[in-house]
Formats: sequence, C-alpha cells, structure tokens
Amino acid sequence: MRTSIATVSLSGALTEKLTAAARAGFDGVEVFENDLLASPLTPEEIRARCADLGLSIDLYQPMRDIEAVPPDEFQRNLRRAEHKFRLMERLGADTVLVCSSVSPHAVDDDALAAFQLRRLAELADGFGIRVAYEALAWGRHVSTYDHAWRIVEAADHPALGTCLDSFHILARDSDPRALEGIAEIPGEKIFFLQLADAPLMAMDVLQWSRHHRCFPGQGGFDIAGFLRQVIKAGYQGPLSLEVFNDVFRQAEAGPTAVDAQRSLLVLQESVGLTAPPAPVVPTGVAFAELVSPDVEPVSELLAALGFTRTARHRGKPVDLWQQGEARVLLNTGPGARRDGTQLAAVGLESPDPAGAAKRAEALLAPVLPRRRTPEDVPLDAVAAPDGTELFFCATGRPGLPDWTSDFDPADPADPTDPAGPTGPTGPADTTDPTEPAPGGIHRIDHLALTQPWHQFDEAALFHRSVLGLGALESVDVADPYGLLRSRAVTNADGSVRIALGVGPAPSADDGDRAQHIALATDDLVTAARRFRAAGGRLLAIPANYYDDLAARYEFADGELETFRALGILYDRDADGAFRHCYTETIGRVFFELVQRDPGHRGYGARNAPVRLAAQHVRRPVR
Amino acid sequence: MRTSIATVSLSGALTEKLTAAARAGFDGVEVFENDLLASPLTPEEIRARCADLGLSIDLYQPMRDIEAVPPDEFQRNLRRAEHKFRLMERLGADTVLVCSSVSPHAVDDDALAAFQLRRLAELADGFGIRVAYEALAWGRHVSTYDHAWRIVEAADHPALGTCLDSFHILARDSDPRALEGIAEIPGEKIFFLQLADAPLMAMDVLQWSRHHRCFPGQGGFDIAGFLRQVIKAGYQGPLSLEVFNDVFRQAEAGPTAVDAQRSLLVLQESVGLTAPPAPVVPTGVAFAELVSPDVEPVSELLAALGFTRTARHRGKPVDLWQQGEARVLLNTGPGARRDGTQLAAVGLESPDPAGAAKRAEALLAPVLPRRRTPEDVPLDAVAAPDGTELFFCATGRPGLPDWTSDFDPADPADPTDPAGPTGPTGPADTTDPTEPAPGGIHRIDHLALTQPWHQFDEAALFHRSVLGLGALESVDVADPYGLLRSRAVTNADGSVRIALGVGPAPSADDGDRAQHIALATDDLVTAARRFRAAGGRLLAIPANYYDDLAARYEFADGELETFRALGILYDRDADGAFRHCYTETIGRVFFELVQRDPGHRGYGARNAPVRLAAQHVRRPVR
Repeated sequence: MRTSIATVSLSGALTEKLTAAARAGFDGVEVFENDLLASPLTPEEIRARCADLGLSIDLYQPMRDIEAVPPDEFQRNLRRAEHKFRLMERLGADTVLVCSSVSPHAVDDDALAAFQLRRLAELADGFGIRVAYEALAWGRHVSTYDHAWRIVEAADHPALGTCLDSFHILARDSDPRALEGIAEIPGEKIFFLQLADAPLMAMDVLQWSRHHRCFPGQGGFDIAGFLRQVIKAGYQGPLSLEVFNDVFRQAEAGPTAVDAQRSLLVLQESVGLTAPPAPVVPTGVAFAELVSPDVEPVSELLAALGFTRTARHRGKPVDLWQQGEARVLLNTGPGARRDGTQLAAVGLESPDPAGAAKRAEALLAPVLPRRRTPEDVPLDAVAAPDGTELFFCATGRPGLPDWTSDFDPADPADPTDPAGPTGPTGPADTTDPTEPAPGGIHRIDHLALTQPWHQFDEAALFHRSVLGLGALESVDVADPYGLLRSRAVTNADGSVRIALGVGPAPSADDGDRAQHIALATDDLVTAARRFRAAGGRLLAIPANYYDDLAARYEFADGELETFRALGILYDRDADGAFRHCYTETIGRVFFELVQRDPGHRGYGARNAPVRLAAQHVRRPVR
Repeated sequence: MRTSIATVSLSGALTEKLTAAARAGFDGVEVFENDLLASPLTPEEIRARCADLGLSIDLYQPMRDIEAVPPDEFQRNLRRAEHKFRLMERLGADTVLVCSSVSPHAVDDDALAAFQLRRLAELADGFGIRVAYEALAWGRHVSTYDHAWRIVEAADHPALGTCLDSFHILARDSDPRALEGIAEIPGEKIFFLQLADAPLMAMDVLQWSRHHRCFPGQGGFDIAGFLRQVIKAGYQGPLSLEVFNDVFRQAEAGPTAVDAQRSLLVLQESVGLTAPPAPVVPTGVAFAELVSPDVEPVSELLAALGFTRTARHRGKPVDLWQQGEARVLLNTGPGARRDGTQLAAVGLESPDPAGAAKRAEALLAPVLPRRRTPEDVPLDAVAAPDGTELFFCATGRPGLPDWTSDFDPADPADPTDPAGPTGPTGPADTTDPTEPAPGGIHRIDHLALTQPWHQFDEAALFHRSVLGLGALESVDVADPYGLLRSRAVTNADGSVRIALGVGPAPSADDGDRAQHIALATDDLVTAARRFRAAGGRLLAIPANYYDDLAARYEFADGELETFRALGILYDRDADGAFRHCYTETIGRVFFELVQRDPGHRGYGARNAPVRLAAQHVRRPVR
C-alpha cells in the first residue's frame, strides 16, 4: 500500500520534513496545519516542492470543533472552512481531517452533527475536497470510531467519510472484538487511515497521545490486528503515520523518517501485504571489533583475560584475539585515532549471510561495501542505528565466504608485530585457543551498546525486525547521575544477546557512551583470579554490597568472601544464578566476565546501580 | 520542626548527597539502602561523616516484603532483618522503614501481618531500633494509611509505629475528609513522616511515584492540608523529603538540596509552624539590565525602539536607556565580554526593598553584596535560580535608597561617550522621556527567561515563594526542534510578569538559552512603523499565518494587511486581544513589542510556534 507520514511526526522546518519523508521513500504526506503556518513557502511553493520530491499531499489536517454547535457558531465554522478549502486548492490537497469536537459549545446531538457535517461536505464538494471525520479519544460527545461512523452514515454525503486512527481507537479499547466493527464499514467510506503505536501506559489519554505516540512496532498496541480489520473493510488509501512524540520532535528528521518507513514495511509484512526477504536469525557472535589508538593497554587487557593473538589481517592493522569461541578484533587503523577506543563492529554468525543482508537492505538498513579492498573476502554488512557495523558471517563454514580467510596466523618472529602473538604480558600459549582452560572464556555472552538518546526505541525495533531477534522488557537502572534504560534483544537460544542502553539525557558528546563486551565462563572465580594473576585490574565493589548479599541469600562457606575479594556481583532468580565482574574501562569500552546458569536470562540489572557507582568512583582494585 | 531528606532525592555518590544536604541546612537524612550499598564507605565511616556534617541519620530505608507471608518465608525475612539491624547499629540509625508487602506470596490477613510485624518489632527492640510501617499506594493488600495503622495498633508493640507518606496517601485519595483520620492516630505512634508532592496526573501510581514526585509546592497536592492533620495528631519527628524524580537524579545535588530545603521552609510557613519575613510583592519592573560586548548594535536597537540614553552610571560603564516607565540598563563592563549579550539583572519595584531581601534570604536565595563599590547607593539584591540578579528597588521614592542616584544625566558633550544621549541613529529628543510619544513604549510588559533545564519547577516555586508572585499553568509550545515549556509568574495587577521557559533537553551550552524583554505600547502598529522607520528590523512572519488569521477572525478593513506588512502576531480570547511583534536577536536577547488589551492575561503562546520557526529561519524583514 502507499505510505504517508504526517509532517508533525518529524522535526525541523516544513521543507526539512518533506525532504526527509521523500528520501525515506514515503509516497505522500499529511500536511499539519501548524507546519504550513510556520513555513515561509506559499501553498503553491509547497505544492511544487512536494511534486519535485515525488510526494503527494494526502491529507490536510486538522480542522477542529466544527460540528454539533449552535447555528451562528456553525456559520463562523463554515466561513473558516471555506478559507481552508481555498488554501487546500492552492496546496493541491483533496482530503481534510475533521476531528470530533472538544468545544464546550458542542451539544450531544448526533442528528445535528450529521446535518452540519453534511453541510460541510457540500461546501467541500464544491472545491473537489473530501472530508474525513475522525473520533478523538477525548472528543466531547464523539469519542469512538463506530460513533463517528454512525454520524457519517447518517449524514450520507459522497464527500463525507471517516478517518480511522489506531491510537484513538486502541487507546480507548484494545479488545479485538471491539475492532471487528471496523470491517463492517464500507471500505470506500474510510477516507483515511492514521497509524500510531504507543507504549502501554495507564495515563491521561490526551497526554499519552500528545507526548508518547510512537511508530508501529515500537509500542504495545496490536497495530497489525487493527490493520487487518481495516483491510478487511476494503480500505484502499495510504497507510499514514501520525506520531506526536517528544523525542522525535528533537531528533534529526532524516533518521526518524527512515525509522518510520521501516516500521510500515514491517507492519505490511506482518499482515501479509508484502513479503520482503525473510529474517535470517543470527546463531552466534562471530566477533566483536574494537578500534583503538591504545593498542598496548587493550592488548594487555585481552592477554590478561586469557585471549591469544592468533592472527593478523593481511592488509590492515587488525589483530584477531581468540579464546574458545570468543573472538575480538583489535583494529588500530586510521579510524582508531579519530574515535578513541570503541566497539565499532560486530560479526554475527548467520545461516545465510547474503539473505540476512538482503533482509536488512529491504528494511532500509544502510548496506556497507562488501569488499573494503580488492583482496578482501566479500562480506555482507549493514550499519545499525547507532552506527555499529554488523557483519553477517559464516565462520569456518565451507562454501560460504569466511572472514577469517583475510587473516594470516600470527607470527611471533615478525619484527613489525609490536605485541607478539600472545600480547605483551604473557608467554606464548601453546594450547589450542579454541579449547579454553578451566576458568577460561568460552564465548561472548552479550554485547552492551549505549544508543544515541533519540533512537532508543528505534534500536529495539531495528534489531527485532532486521535481525529477527526477540526483545525483552525495558528496565530502568539508577546511575548516580541519572536514570538509564536498558532493553535486551536476543535470539531464542541466547547465543546472541545485545543489551541496548540509553542515558538519562541527550549528550552533546555521544563519544562518552559506554559499551562493553561480556565474556562467558563456566568458572568465574577461577577466571577472575587468573585475570588478576595476569596483571588485570577488576572493578572494586563496595563491602556494603556483600553485607547485603549475606542478608538476602545463603552462600556456601567462603563463597561470599571470595566474591568480595574479587569484586564479583551476584544475582539469582527462579531460573538460576548470574555471577559477574568487570574490568577497568579503556576509552568507551570495558569487559565483563559472566558466569550464567543455563536458564538465567538476566543481565544483572539489580547490580547495575552498584556497578555504575563503582565506575564513577574509578578506583580499581588489584 | 527538624528537616530531613532521603538520599535518593539527590544525585551523586552518597558523600556528595550528604554534603549537599548539610550545606542546605538539613538536620538529618534518610539513608536509602541502595546509596549505602554503592558507597565505598563503611557504615561506621558514613556515621562519622554524618556526625562531622551535623546530620543525624533519621531513617534507614526501605525494608520490603516482610509481613503476612508463610512461616518459612517469614523466618528468612527475620534473618534478613537481623542483618539489617546489625548494619543499622553500625550506622547509628534507630528507625527502619518497612513498606507494605508487594510480594505475590503475601496473604490478605491482617492478624498475620500484625503478628509478624510484632515479631519483627521484638527483634528490632533488642537492637534499640524502631520499625515504621508504611502503606505503599500499590501495596498488595495494605495500601492505605488507616489500614496500615489498624495493623500497627493490633500488633501493639512499643517498637512498632507507622510512617506516613504524603505521596502514597494523596495519590490514592486527596479528599480532605479522607485525611481527617490521620489526626486520630496517637502522635507518638507516627514514627516518621515522608513528604513529597507531585503534579496532578492521571497515570499509573507506581510510575507516577518513581519518576514524577517533586518537592512540596512544586506539584498539585495539598501538602499543607495533609501536614496540618499530622501536626494535629501530635507528631514530633522530622519533616522528611523523599522524592523520586528523573530530573533531580540528573541535576547537581547542591542546588537541588537548597531547593528542597526552601520547599520545607515555605511549607512550614504555610501551616504556621514558622513565621519568616513576609513576602513583599513587587509592584513593577524598575529596569532590565543587559550586559553586552556589542554596545553599538544594542544601542542602535534601543534607539530604534524609541529609547533615549538618559544617564550613565557614575563609576561603571552602564548606560540607562529610558522610555516612559520602561528602563533598560546597558552594561558594557568586564562581564559583558565574557558572557555575550544577555539579560543579567532585573530591578523590581518593591514597597520595602530591605524586607524583600530579608524574605529572600530567609528562603535561601543567595544575597548579593549591597554595595558594589563604596560610592554606590546600597541596593538589596538576590540571585534567582537561573543566576539572574534581582534588585529590589525604590525608584524615585523619598526616604528609600534610589538606584538612579548612582547615575548622572547623559552629557552629549562628553567625548568619552560613544553613543551620545540619544544613540547613534537619531537626533536629540527634547521631549520628556517619561512621556512616550504615540506608539511609544510605556513600560516593560514582561520578561521571558529561559531556565536551566534541571530547575524549571524550582524556578516557579522560587518566584512564588520568594517574591510572592502567582504562577499560571505551564504550557507546552512546539518549537521546530523540540517541545518547550513555559510558565508565567505575575503579581495581581500584571505590572510584574515573568515568563519562565525551558528547552526540550538539557543543553551543554546554557548560553544559547533565549531571553527577551517585552515592551508595552498602546499602539503597536505605530510603534512597529516607527521602529522600522528608525532602521529597526522586525522578525518576518510567514504569509500563511495571516491567511489563517483571516479564517479565524474578522478584522477591520486593512488591519490584517497592516499586520502582515509589519510581522504583527495576533491572539484573542474572552478577555481581549494580544498583538505583538519581535525584533532581531543579539546574543541571547531579543525584544518584543506588545499591545495588550487590559484584561488579556496571555503571552501569545498560540503564536509561539510560528515565531520560533521564524527565528530559526533568521531572515529578518525590513
């Protein structure tokens, strides 16, 4: 179906909004009246701009407080409407949204409402304009879609139809049975369809609508179930997003428009209107790539964690450090010096790398060049909303391009290699790096990526829709200097887990956003001790924390003292325990060591305030 | 009464919170368990730190999910409690908060709850500790204060009492009659009193409590009415603030603690517990002081607005520009070069300047030195939360210090005077500057000051409590790049009006916060024309705006065209019309010209989105 977006959903001047909508692939826009009033462009110039951009103007909105009023007020309303119809003629818009009245002068009289709306439609008809009447959830007398439709039906004029808005309908009653009446409305009388999702909140519906709407799939409404009813009715118009959101108002219009379009692509897929390439769910983490100008401290840290530098990229200053199935690439190329130490890319094991990339591309993820140099193995990769590069990998799988083919085994005799094969701190490890020692690292447990403030909700939708991951509930975490939010996305067996985080406020310097790599071990105490023995420093956790653990749980003799000595944090639920500890931070990045009982699905959120406070103290223990 | 604050109400590490609380004059604190767990200080060190700071530890909190559970779970709970009582011994805290259970295992059995709470109190008693039992508004079976009290009464143990929390009580039922039962509780059984206000919102009470609590007087609850009942009961303990607020979590602890203490001072005054110096409501705006390194463009702008440079400060590079009762000081001293053009100070006409300053000082406003130099007239002045200096003035009133005595009449013959008496653009004006010409400025209509993001709610409370102004409702205003909020404070006759604004997000650079001075005229069209004729540039307003005005209102012949030509905005309500237009911006500052019908109380909020968009375009019309 055609896609459209209300200009109020995007930030900036009207021309910025239009450009962003067109670039994101929308077919049309709803022109929000205030955006037009604030624009220095004439209606004719706006019309021409839209035409240049390939956008139709699908709706002019809103017209308020028109119907069911005393005659003299209705005459003034008709005068006002006529002005707007003339404007719409200049603008080239043929449908106007009329919201059910909230005026204190409106009376509860459906016959009067129908009579006056018919008069309005007659007037509109003379201008070739259609009137789409919508029930606001907080309308004074008309607040449900079926009530609005009964009035439209009674008015019985070809230029009068109804507009359905998913927010107004689902915010009042999300019972699927309540939606069945939609399919009974003749499709041609549904003049317009506005879509917005929202997080499920028990709050005043007007405030909820004005500040917390979001794109389909970002909230808690069953937009797909709603849309199915509308399609069943025979609706043929555009799918149009009308989202009032405090965050989107501040965010750049370009990325927001892309996120918006993606939400409609996913929605259309979910109701079977389109069939983009199916999601290819990743089956593991192939690697995490750090870029860093500080090769020495990062190498020392990796070595102390038990990693071995096993290979070096043939053409670039990128080392592969490995332990069990955990692989970390350390890239010290030109980008490193610019951005400081950060987690720049993630390799995801994919059953079908090319298919995963096609899915991502179909859902508007920026596709990255397959070959960085002519010699490289071609790799499918896209950029996540936070800029992290996601590589779809087939590590060691015959018949598929293997990223490890770009790497040569590390050569201890190579004089150009500053670190040597095992890093500066340890002797050469002669064991097979894929066979971790006791207390060794088996794999990457999860990656934690702090998202740009304006794109937190979008990041979850991206990972769900593009990668086919499932999203857990969002949790609040108290940092000493503000509340953080975190939401994990994961595949079914937990072999891919990404914790998406967001800070308490937009930061001028996105570069201070923390990232971490959590490494899985079967024996955290041994792992932590080995790390310390190898010169690693663990984050100091206050003694008070362990006194509280003692109050909450019973531990085997000496266990708590061990945890205390090492800075190991502990959490437990019905599915088992979660033990974890943290390294120091280099640039934006630190490591976590994790011992997770098989059934445990958490990330230590309960301990996060203590960890965050300790990181602010920045007083590492040895 | 003694004042206390929960550490959770302030940002930072525990030691920062304690220091901030002590500096703001609190007598004690509630130690929030998570703050203790995250602190590297031992309980003994925290105890010593509090003692050094002169703070008592009035409460340790919270203990959760204790009562009305199966016996084995209760045994585990007692074990946990014993750990905490030992900790409290070390900490030197003698009262613990127990919140009514939210555990799914809790049963609805008051007798069991009473029995188990009595057991807990017996255990506590052995440590010299008192248990204060509080009903959470979302408690599983106990959610009202009277229910909690009935259980405490039934348990009948001297070490068990109740804790009353204004949020939990008023969020559930704010009917004054529902509060009368409080006075029936024996005062000595009210072990603790927690105070928090909140904006009136229809939303999930748990979310409301965790994110939107605020200090008394900042929200919509009748905290004074609640407190009167508690005092009537005979409560003798501290007034303690327990405020969970997303903004305070990010704000600096020091200013937040001062704001918190001020809220308790005002609350105590409102129930007659204390009698600080009474507010002295200002009766007018004596002057607005701009500091600016750009003397020439600002002087040009003032001259074009019809101001005359009438006097110069005897000892400092400060010029007085005057027109009618509107006075603008232009300060080009050393501060100007550092901060750019901004509105740095406001003179408020005060019936009793010394009394106004005493009131401000009693409410913790920073008092500024009365004499800047030995020669200056002594002036009473304090700093507002945003740093604006507020001078309490008695302009031309015999027997009171008059700030104008520091100024000498401008001397056109003075070679050190770059501007001359009337500014660079016009000839000497021989009329009396207190008698404005037609279309002239009579007075300052209002001042608009954008507040630091973290202190918007506090700013309103400051202006209400310190200056005795009334506050209007907060309004949302759509800027193209985010939603702004604005709240006006004003005296009864509207001769002092200050619009407090706040941006959509914390800004790294508070220096980009806009400020403006609105000047009142009786004839805006003439004023705007005179301004343009004198070389002034008015903000261009889009033609579309005027087409909309034509749709909404009927105008006299030619009136709308005049508005359109001059960039005049128009609003109207039942109390009359409001016409206004804007100058260009210099630094952070611009001017507004206002023609206000006598009864109109607005500030053109309806037009603000158009004005803000036009200011982003920055394309002045001439």
